Amino acid sequence: MPTPIASKYQSFADLGGPAKVGERIAALRARLATQGLSGFVIPRADRHQNEYLPPDQERLLWATGFSGSAGLAIVLKDKAALFVDGRYTVQAAAQTDRGVFDCCPAGEKAAQDWLKENLRQGDRLGFDPWNHTYDFVQSLTELCASAGAEFVAVATNPIDDLWTDRPGPPDGPVSARPLRLSGETAEAKIARLRAEGFGADGLFISDAHNVAWLFNIRGSDIAHIPLPLAFAYVPREGKPALFVAATKLSAAVRERIAAIAEVREPSEIEAFLTEQAKAQHKVAFDKATAAYKLIDAFREAGGKFALAADPITLMKACKNDVEIESSRRAHLIDGKAVVQFLEWFDREGANAPRTEIDAAVQLEAFRAQAPTFRDISFPTISAAGPHAALPHYRVGEASDIPIAPGLFLIDSGAQYEEGTTDITRTIAVGEPSSDMIDRYTRVLKGHIAVATCLFPEGTSGAQIDAFARRALWDVGADFDHGTGHGVGVYLSVHEGPQRIAKTAAVALRPGMIVSNEPGYYAPERFGIRIENLLVVVRKSIAGAEREMLGFETISLAPIDLRPVDRGLLTEAEIAWINAYHAWVRDALGPGLEESTRDWLEKATAPRWV
Amino acid sequence: MPTPIASKYQSFADLGGPAKVGERIAALRARLATQGLSGFVIPRADRHQNEYLPPDQERLLWATGFSGSAGLAIVLKDKAALFVDGRYTVQAAAQTDRGVFDCCPAGEKAAQDWLKENLRQGDRLGFDPWNHTYDFVQSLTELCASAGAEFVAVATNPIDDLWTDRPGPPDGPVSARPLRLSGETAEAKIARLRAEGFGADGLFISDAHNVAWLFNIRGSDIAHIPLPLAFAYVPREGKPALFVAATKLSAAVRERIAAIAEVREPSEIEAFLTEQAKAQHKVAFDKATAAYKLIDAFREAGGKFALAADPITLMKACKNDVEIESSRRAHLIDGKAVVQFLEWFDREGANAPRTEIDAAVQLEAFRAQAPTFRDISFPTISAAGPHAALPHYRVGEASDIPIAPGLFLIDSGAQYEEGTTDITRTIAVGEPSSDMIDRYTRVLKGHIAVATCLFPEGTSGAQIDAFARRALWDVGADFDHGTGHGVGVYLSVHEGPQRIAKTAAVALRPGMIVSNEPGYYAPERFGIRIENLLVVVRKSIAGAEREMLGFETISLAPIDLRPVDRGLLTEAEIAWINAYHAWVRDALGPGLEESTRDWLEKATAPRWV
Repeated sequence: MPTPIASKYQSFADLGGPAKVGERIAALRARLATQGLSGFVIPRADRHQNEYLPPDQERLLWATGFSGSAGLAIVLKDKAALFVDGRYTVQAAAQTDRGVFDCCPAGEKAAQDWLKENLRQGDRLGFDPWNHTYDFVQSLTELCASAGAEFVAVATNPIDDLWTDRPGPPDGPVSARPLRLSGETAEAKIARLRAEGFGADGLFISDAHNVAWLFNIRGSDIAHIPLPLAFAYVPREGKPALFVAATKLSAAVRERIAAIAEVREPSEIEAFLTEQAKAQHKVAFDKATAAYKLIDAFREAGGKFALAADPITLMKACKNDVEIESSRRAHLIDGKAVVQFLEWFDREGANAPRTEIDAAVQLEAFRAQAPTFRDISFPTISAAGPHAALPHYRVGEASDIPIAPGLFLIDSGAQYEEGTTDITRTIAVGEPSSDMIDRYTRVLKGHIAVATCLFPEGTSGAQIDAFARRALWDVGADFDHGTGHGVGVYLSVHEGPQRIAKTAAVALRPGMIVSNEPGYYAPERFGIRIENLLVVVRKSIAGAEREMLGFETISLAPIDLRPVDRGLLTEAEIAWINAYHAWVRDALGPGLEESTRDWLEKATAPRWV
Repeated sequence: MPTPIASKYQSFADLGGPAKVGERIAALRARLATQGLSGFVIPRADRHQNEYLPPDQERLLWATGFSGSAGLAIVLKDKAALFVDGRYTVQAAAQTDRGVFDCCPAGEKAAQDWLKENLRQGDRLGFDPWNHTYDFVQSLTELCASAGAEFVAVATNPIDDLWTDRPGPPDGPVSARPLRLSGETAEAKIARLRAEGFGADGLFISDAHNVAWLFNIRGSDIAHIPLPLAFAYVPREGKPALFVAATKLSAAVRERIAAIAEVREPSEIEAFLTEQAKAQHKVAFDKATAAYKLIDAFREAGGKFALAADPITLMKACKNDVEIESSRRAHLIDGKAVVQFLEWFDREGANAPRTEIDAAVQLEAFRAQAPTFRDISFPTISAAGPHAALPHYRVGEASDIPIAPGLFLIDSGAQYEEGTTDITRTIAVGEPSSDMIDRYTRVLKGHIAVATCLFPEGTSGAQIDAFARRALWDVGADFDHGTGHGVGVYLSVHEGPQRIAKTAAVALRPGMIVSNEPGYYAPERFGIRIENLLVVVRKSIAGAEREMLGFETISLAPIDLRPVDRGLLTEAEIAWINAYHAWVRDALGPGLEESTRDWLEKATAPRWV
């Protein structure tokens, strides 16, 4: 087996594990005792409620050994529990020390029910006020009170005192996003935001993605997302304030920002909020991301606040024409790398047993050749055989297996200066079985049903979600995740509020980018997912009586047709496949080397016509 | 034109109108002044929040001249407004006196916004505490308080004092529903209800449909619904109480009910609730239907109450096997009448110009021949040409028109002892235009897409609603009502909580009956709707990995295939049409006279095979 090429962009090291959990929790309990606390709540969260955390914020991993992307631990004097959702029950049980932590399902109120059972009269349960939302603190404060206990904000996080090799805070340089990529100046965005209104004298922006979008800046504080950790404040009138560490700003960037905003240190936020309170300015905070600490500081200073959804979230979700055009270019670049990978995979597959890590590293290497490539957009899900049945499988050195005959699933994406990509292909290795073929064909039918649907303005993602499932429902099958998530432009690969899912109540609007990724998972056997990104676009239909919307697919790569049962496809579905493949071939072919182009020609040749 | 046969079951008289509105509102204002009130709120409601009202409860119609099925009026000293939803804006403007009432859209909070603008400091706004829910009174009490006004419950409704020719309260005899039709004894239902739980010491049942279902009784207090106006109380243990006027009970029925419940007069309810309060029984009231008066009386007596959804609503919605089998029989009876009507319509159409009323009366006459026919289930929507573009058109003597070439829509149903029916057919008269054919075919495609879909347990009506719309969306069209409503068994033709609609969050469960009625409406030109009733059933699918549900269509009548564009249909859709028609032919043919059977053979002959 050839030595794998090293990855610059992702680690396959096996994270977490139970080894140190016992001693760390013992130390934490001792520490809590000195602080007069009987317990502590450990969320997987930073000061912005980010989904992806910088390493210094991985306190849940440090304390529990669990490395998944969502979870909450509660440590009491003689009991502790780790709450994780359905994706992570197996992983959490394997990674944490079960002698220390009970692993519990993280359903609605699960942690609260556990607390109700285990809190004792007089308990003082600590929490870090920077890492929880206002609503969370409110409900736990009430819960503790009703148990005769107290929910206590700590001044410093006790884990930080114990975590001796804790990394420093990220210090990535901030860059300005040029108008040729943003399509709208920060001044214009701020004016639009003010016109939109936020029901207060000022809007405090705690979602760092929203800060990045509004001020047309990007950063490098978090792996895979060009995010600067920053806060901002936009008053109804006058100069906004941007709270970002001065060390992250070059002179040029600082000058550019200074033209539109006061630049201040994040450590000045509390004093700043106190000033706003004294000036009797009513401030709106974002319900979903504002830290309790911020609101508490403001309220303590006598400030009147409103909790609402930050209107920037929706503004950012609706990309302008320049952003969409730029995203299309990102997808052309990405498509070339994916095609190179698929050609390599088909060629190499016959020669040598490659592993999941080999595939992930090779795909990354093709992507990294592009001059505007900056990072991958999330750790690659490279999943052979039974691993693909785990929709969120993360390959590590211990789990890595050779890609054997069956189905191989690879879900990956990249950050190019032009935009963010996310694509999944499932590839037949050898002869797929008849049930693989049946399910693969149904997933493809679902993918096409979403890609081709038209819908009137005002339609939500929930209304069209079942289009992705009907062909699976027909045989009594389904998949247990949403059909699609929102995607940013050179920002997070997971962005709200747009979604396609059972409960996605937000209306789809022109310019939103959303994934289309139905799947099918046969536990311990195989997994299938076919994912392209879509842009919501206006559709002009002769004789239309409503304002109609639909999707434009922007991801480019052949869909493997070897595991397809043609008998299950309609003529319209076949026409869509051939048209999509013709577009992929025409768009990517001219930029490829001859051998890759030959492969692409074959992979995209018209079928069943 | 032949004299129409008189209708025993519906009136085509022109209801309402502006003539008396001015004098009545003047009298009402004078009356209010004597009671120290500056205004009054007039909902379209009775003491049970019924959708269909007995005549003595039609206070909104009396006061405003508006005869629609939903609305709210507010009369102040020098201003008055009538709030109606989108279905009724044209009708309300035509029926009420616009010099007295402003006609306003009844959106979320519209009435409240109007009140905020028009209430004055010191105003005393009256309301009848029997005709509003607790939540409504709470929110208006707060609103009035914040305007420096007061929301005041009146002891007697001032309209009742002024309404000189007000009909007496309904006094329809109550009948027992035999076990061969209910499939479950009242005792067993009560035991199930107690096992289900209602979070209190007793459940007060204010939804008269739920009382009828639980005690296996029916009545005749309201047109088109065999409903006895009654309340009930079920304690956790011991004998329930049924509040129903003794005059409605025969000796036999009284004896039967007395075996399971104390029978009391409705006038005893307040005293009864006071007793419960004194006994410190916590009582659960239904959020949606319990009158404010009931809860207020209980609370004033010191009672602790819970407001929740009456669990009977969901129990009643899930029909048992006997009820489903009985509903199937009702539909066989109804299908025969509908086929007789369709044959008559095709035959007569060529001979003489028939009107909308002629058609409605003729259909009713065919239905009334069945020995178990008791009533129609709602006023027939018999709509020719442009009238069909109004989804809720009610034909009256003034609006009645001859059925001219184009499309004729008839939406009707009946109450048989066996069950309740509701069916819509749209019929081509002469040569339909190409746009009629296109839209009719797409409505039919939507109907088939719903009828044939399979879905996993837990799927809501909202998730499958778009199946009904996709073929219309494809050409930029849609329809502005839900795809389906719940239907009872020899009870209301509108029943919750089951629905198929954008916002229908309740999961569909086996035994629920729901309509499947996509439509299309070309304003001032034509309207299309194709409706059958469906039962939610378990579907056994070879190799299924989930518990799957689907629908069984129970309505029987040919679907007109003359306005169909075969080119728009898939093979699977054609197969469904032919299979449905074969079932209709086989099920109904043997019971028909020869000429009708010949017609049915032709109307259901296999097509496009």
